Amino acid sequence: MPARARTRPGAEPETTIGQYLIDRLSQLGVRHVFGIPGDYVLGLFKMLEESPLRLVGTATELGAGFAADAYARINGLGAACVTYAVGGLNLANATACAYAEKSPVVVISGAPALRERKPNLFLHHMVQGYTTQYEVFQKVTAASCVLDDPLTAFREIDRVLGACLRYKRPVYIELPRDRLTSTMVYPHTPLAEKPRSEPEVLAEAVAEATTMLRASRRPVIIVGIEVHRFGLASQVLRLAEASGIPLAALLLSKAAVPENHPLYAGIYGGGMGRPEVIDFVEGSDCVLMLGAILNDIDSSTITKTLDESRIIFATTEQVRIRHHHYQGILLADFIEALTGADVHTAPRPLPPKLDPIYAPWQARGDEPITCARLFQKINALLSEELVVVADVGDCLFGAADLSGAARTDFVAAAFYASMGFAVPAEIGVQCAAPRKRPLVLVGDGAFQMTGLELTTALRQQLNPIVVVLNNGGYGTERFILEGSFNDIHNWNYHRLPDLLGGGLGFEVRTEGELEEAMDAALANCESYTLLNTRLGQHDTSPALRRLAARFAKKV
Amino acid sequence: MPARARTRPGAEPETTIGQYLIDRLSQLGVRHVFGIPGDYVLGLFKMLEESPLRLVGTATELGAGFAADAYARINGLGAACVTYAVGGLNLANATACAYAEKSPVVVISGAPALRERKPNLFLHHMVQGYTTQYEVFQKVTAASCVLDDPLTAFREIDRVLGACLRYKRPVYIELPRDRLTSTMVYPHTPLAEKPRSEPEVLAEAVAEATTMLRASRRPVIIVGIEVHRFGLASQVLRLAEASGIPLAALLLSKAAVPENHPLYAGIYGGGMGRPEVIDFVEGSDCVLMLGAILNDIDSSTITKTLDESRIIFATTEQVRIRHHHYQGILLADFIEALTGADVHTAPRPLPPKLDPIYAPWQARGDEPITCARLFQKINALLSEELVVVADVGDCLFGAADLSGAARTDFVAAAFYASMGFAVPAEIGVQCAAPRKRPLVLVGDGAFQMTGLELTTALRQQLNPIVVVLNNGGYGTERFILEGSFNDIHNWNYHRLPDLLGGGLGFEVRTEGELEEAMDAALANCESYTLLNTRLGQHDTSPALRRLAARFAKKV
Repeated sequence: MPARARTRPGAEPETTIGQYLIDRLSQLGVRHVFGIPGDYVLGLFKMLEESPLRLVGTATELGAGFAADAYARINGLGAACVTYAVGGLNLANATACAYAEKSPVVVISGAPALRERKPNLFLHHMVQGYTTQYEVFQKVTAASCVLDDPLTAFREIDRVLGACLRYKRPVYIELPRDRLTSTMVYPHTPLAEKPRSEPEVLAEAVAEATTMLRASRRPVIIVGIEVHRFGLASQVLRLAEASGIPLAALLLSKAAVPENHPLYAGIYGGGMGRPEVIDFVEGSDCVLMLGAILNDIDSSTITKTLDESRIIFATTEQVRIRHHHYQGILLADFIEALTGADVHTAPRPLPPKLDPIYAPWQARGDEPITCARLFQKINALLSEELVVVADVGDCLFGAADLSGAARTDFVAAAFYASMGFAVPAEIGVQCAAPRKRPLVLVGDGAFQMTGLELTTALRQQLNPIVVVLNNGGYGTERFILEGSFNDIHNWNYHRLPDLLGGGLGFEVRTEGELEEAMDAALANCESYTLLNTRLGQHDTSPALRRLAARFAKKV
Repeated sequence: MPARARTRPGAEPETTIGQYLIDRLSQLGVRHVFGIPGDYVLGLFKMLEESPLRLVGTATELGAGFAADAYARINGLGAACVTYAVGGLNLANATACAYAEKSPVVVISGAPALRERKPNLFLHHMVQGYTTQYEVFQKVTAASCVLDDPLTAFREIDRVLGACLRYKRPVYIELPRDRLTSTMVYPHTPLAEKPRSEPEVLAEAVAEATTMLRASRRPVIIVGIEVHRFGLASQVLRLAEASGIPLAALLLSKAAVPENHPLYAGIYGGGMGRPEVIDFVEGSDCVLMLGAILNDIDSSTITKTLDESRIIFATTEQVRIRHHHYQGILLADFIEALTGADVHTAPRPLPPKLDPIYAPWQARGDEPITCARLFQKINALLSEELVVVADVGDCLFGAADLSGAARTDFVAAAFYASMGFAVPAEIGVQCAAPRKRPLVLVGDGAFQMTGLELTTALRQQLNPIVVVLNNGGYGTERFILEGSFNDIHNWNYHRLPDLLGGGLGFEVRTEGELEEAMDAALANCESYTLLNTRLGQHDTSPALRRLAARFAKKV
């Protein structure tokens, strides 16, 4: 049977479109799919339920999107599955987040059957026409398709999933419900794609970069987010170790390389970075930026202070040296070639690693808890087991300073900065890494947006520790422009277990209460534990204070 | 001062773009703006705070969108204001809902300043480029603009707001934060636009329709949603009364004309309509459909059963008689001309108004509460003061049968059918009509999506009665395809007041408990009251049972 011999597992001639999609996701390492059913996608949900993939039902589509994003960051690929329009359009923001921060998420949406589409009749959930949702998702994904034709559907699935993995960006797959069980027209074999660098372009760029690095006396490597997403951390460490060049990270790429590495200098984050690290990086005479997305949060000062003629800027999309560009180079090949290029740098002293918030923690009984002391306590807790999942605002800025002795995973939407990311992200983190325990840092405003996804944590028997930094509103915005619009209605966040019928909740006003609640949280392995941490309205982390001080200087 | 003489209020030469936008919204009747601040839109929030408009801060952008939609349905125009991307893209689904169901909502988004946009640098919240969000909203709005140029900004505001009112569809306005206080380049006068019908086209269409109506013996008017949105109810009633033609409504247009009108026959809803009403409509020999959006929920059977050559289909977009189309006719003019066209129909008996669920209610003590009995109780409560706000699923189908003695407002996303609409919609309803009291009917699955917006109700001191129809999951989907994906984690919904620190909650298992809880709800004018109504997993309203029976017949 020659036709059969040419197929691979999951591509038998009788394989349906729905089954092929599930098989390919499974072969590419996906084990969980996050989503909410609806009538246009019920058939696919049934097929998923009967597959080895595990369906994780969330409370909202936005929650499914953030969970799939965080899952993809850790697992290498994630998926969300929803119904048409009323489900899909609620994923627009989470998909944009994954796009901006390079997270490979497959968004799958059901759609009306082709045979039920008739002139002069709208079907429920329709907006302008049948292509509205597809057109919206074209704006926030790297590739997209509608599987309306069995002739092309199998190849389209390959193309779109390939783009997801190659670019580490979200993609969109729409499946009309009457195509779910269509089978292939001709035998289909998945195409294996292997991109490669243009040898001459690579050689020229490496030669130029090597010359710059050899001529420099104080070079530094800035590790960008792509190093994490494309799995290049070990390669980058080999380059650093071979050349002796120290490493700094950005806020978005925090923990992409182990923070306890002897060559690690710290987080270089424009506005809120520690002054010692900023001086160290900006005192360098050659900056090798690897896989960074240059953005205003991470690097507002770098372009002002650093001479662009001393920057080698290499990403998966291009290599830019001084003011010219090289195309067609794989980042991995570029790093590999530099590692073998015999660059040696004399050691220079790294910035001191210590900071007041790293001091050993000891609870001071009835002292009201402050933001700085809370982060100090959290820092003392960090271990191999904990993953810090930080929401936006002071949770994120404060978390920039966290650094345990061991390598700690860190998950945050640090550049796209969408409030409400952290609680649903926690679900994705713990599904992807069941042996890890997420420590979620979330502001009260963000918690009101998506915190109720802890219902999903309960249902999935996850056990995150959720610290609500409750300062009575949108705290970071108060720094910029104060008004009553920054206030929100206060909740008894610690009473959430009464509503959900599960979990543990604590109200924390003093250092002693923090100590007790955190002990109870660590001991509670059965469910989530929530700490409603009451902070002063204008209390902030040391990092946000540095940001505010620099901001004030500018004005 | 000639320049001054040519301006109107709100268009003085020193008026800023932000102020002009606020002034125009105010002049067009907007009194509340729903939204959440963010740094790109903080300046506009400050300006709004200092304006006569009232800012209503919601917990989520989706909540702001649904609130603005419901507000627009009652008030004639609504507005939501959010920050760039992380805020705006969370409005995509609510905006699509407003588009599909013709609700005039102005979506306002902040954006990065033009002066902070630089090559090779991403700003926080950016997706692909600066136009991503604008391009997304072009797909779900009737008109859109970016106010980046003071020369055109004032005219663009007029154009886009004009389209919102003319088409009763959402529009999108994006305001870069450094254009907020830009003033006009030349004196600007708002253009008043007055569309009119083409006289000859109108005359021909009316003549043809009149001939058909005069020749018919059993005509019927189907009142569509545009009759509500474009304020044509009184006109339609005059036409019905002048001609003696009976009226039916669709589910989406329920209560667009008073349900106690002597010519009112009932809801003609394809799948779940009462058989008497379906027979009445389908036994008609001429159907005058006014302002309807033909969709599968409302009218799946009409196109099958009714002869298209007997349909006069008139909307704000076109008039279609049998198989030909007239363009350039205003719906109001068409109705007016038909009213004066001397059509007279002999009376025919209307379908009986009574149905088991209309029977007088008397609580039967410890009897477990059922869906049918719950709707019977609700029907007994209806009054001029109550507005029924129904979410999707059995809440909606069951509510189709509701009919009080007096005219009752009814708000639901009956065709776009986005779960989670009702609770945020309630906020918009009560802001627009402070003397009304919303009775919210919402399933447990939908409540988990957006029910926490009751925090906004608390903050705004609103007093809705929220009935959670708790059947342990996505009940309507169980009818179509059962699977564990239709289950959700059960909440103690009645414990919500403990989390929010306000409101009243009741668990309702029996008829006696329903009676007591509803009495307490009616007496509680200070805050929301929530009834966690425990229904059997497969218990449904009579309407959903009719739908299921017809569905089963088809299979």
